[in-house]
This record gives sequence, structure tokens and C-alpha cells, in this order.
Amino acid sequence: MVLVRQELGDVLRDFRLQKAMTLRQVASRASVALGYLSEVERGQKEASSEILASVADALDTPVSVIMREVGDRLAVVGGVTGVAVTLPDELVGEVDVALAMR
Amino acid sequence: MVLVRQELGDVLRDFRLQKAMTLRQVASRASVALGYLSEVERGQKEASSEILASVADALDTPVSVIMREVGDRLAVVGGVTGVAVTLPDELVGEVDVALAMR
Repeated sequence: MVLVRQELGDVLRDFRLQKAMTLRQVASRASVALGYLSEVERGQKEASSEILASVADALDTPVSVIMREVGDRLAVVGGVTGVAVTLPDELVGEVDVALAMR
Repeated sequence: MVLVRQELGDVLRDFRLQKAMTLRQVASRASVALGYLSEVERGQKEASSEILASVADALDTPVSVIMREVGDRLAVVGGVTGVAVTLPDELVGEVDVALAMR
């Protein structure tokens, strides 16, 4: 089972890299200790709501966007999707292969 | 600013009431202390990822669904929407009124 803090850590790191910021830059802007932020990104520490708000602010990304992304990724991992997809028979095999390669 | 734990608490309570379960029932199924769950629902305590997983399980609701709902509600509160809407001029005033009434 994937925990929320692990998915949240991945999302925070991905947003940071997307903005081409270093851990040090985000930690400094968010007034959070570098080691702490690093542990949060690795899913080893729970971020309090206040810290999450500061980090989101430092990333210029609304907390809502971060939480939705966490929810979306957890849904993919957990096999819950918001959309039911019916595949043509000839594609079903290919999807199995694609999933097996993940 | 609305914090994640406050929105999360509201979402957990709403899902619980939707399932017509009592705090006691959810706490017992999730093996969480009743007082603790109550504080989480009121947004006074941060739920660890493990506790969140247990409570989600007790509510028969995937964590992904809970996190998406939190994200969606934070977006409404924060004024971030996933969809850009262009209104006909004659409706703009009505929307202002609707927002003012919230």
C-alpha cells in the first residue's frame, strides 16, 4: 500500500524539479529546514498542514493542486479511476503488455 | 487560509455521515481512539498517513477519493478551478450575487 506521505513527497519533488528549483531554494523560501524538506520529499516525514502550505507557496503552486495530484496518483496506484474505459478487443492485449512493463 | 487538516477533517466527517456511521463505529473499525478521530474530524490534529489509511478503510472509501475531495474543496475555497468558464455578460452579475451569498 502506498501511503499519502510517500505520494505527497513525490508530488512535491516533481513540482520542484518542474520549476527547476533546488531543495535549498525551496527550503529557504518556505523557512523549512533543508533536511526536513528532504525527508518529506522522500516520504519519510509527515508534513504538517502549515509546512505544506509554506512549501506550496514556495513552489508557487496552490495546495489544492498538490492535493488533487496526490489523489490522482493514489487512484492510479490503487486502481481507482474516475473514468470507465471500454477498450476494443484488439487493444486489450496491448494494454496488458503496457501494464506489465510498468 | 484553510489548512489541509481542516478540509480533511470535514471530508472525513462528511463521508462518515454519508455512510450513516457514528464516530464510535469508525474509530472502532479503524482501531483509532475515539477522541483522536474526533479531533482529526474537527481539524485539530494531523492524521498520520497510516491512520488516514485505516480510517479510509473503515469508511470503505479509497484514500485517493478522500484526497481528491480535499483538493477539490481547497480549490473552491482558494478560488482555483480546473475549468475556465466564460460567462455571457448578462449572467456575470448573478454569479457575483451567488458568490456574495456564500
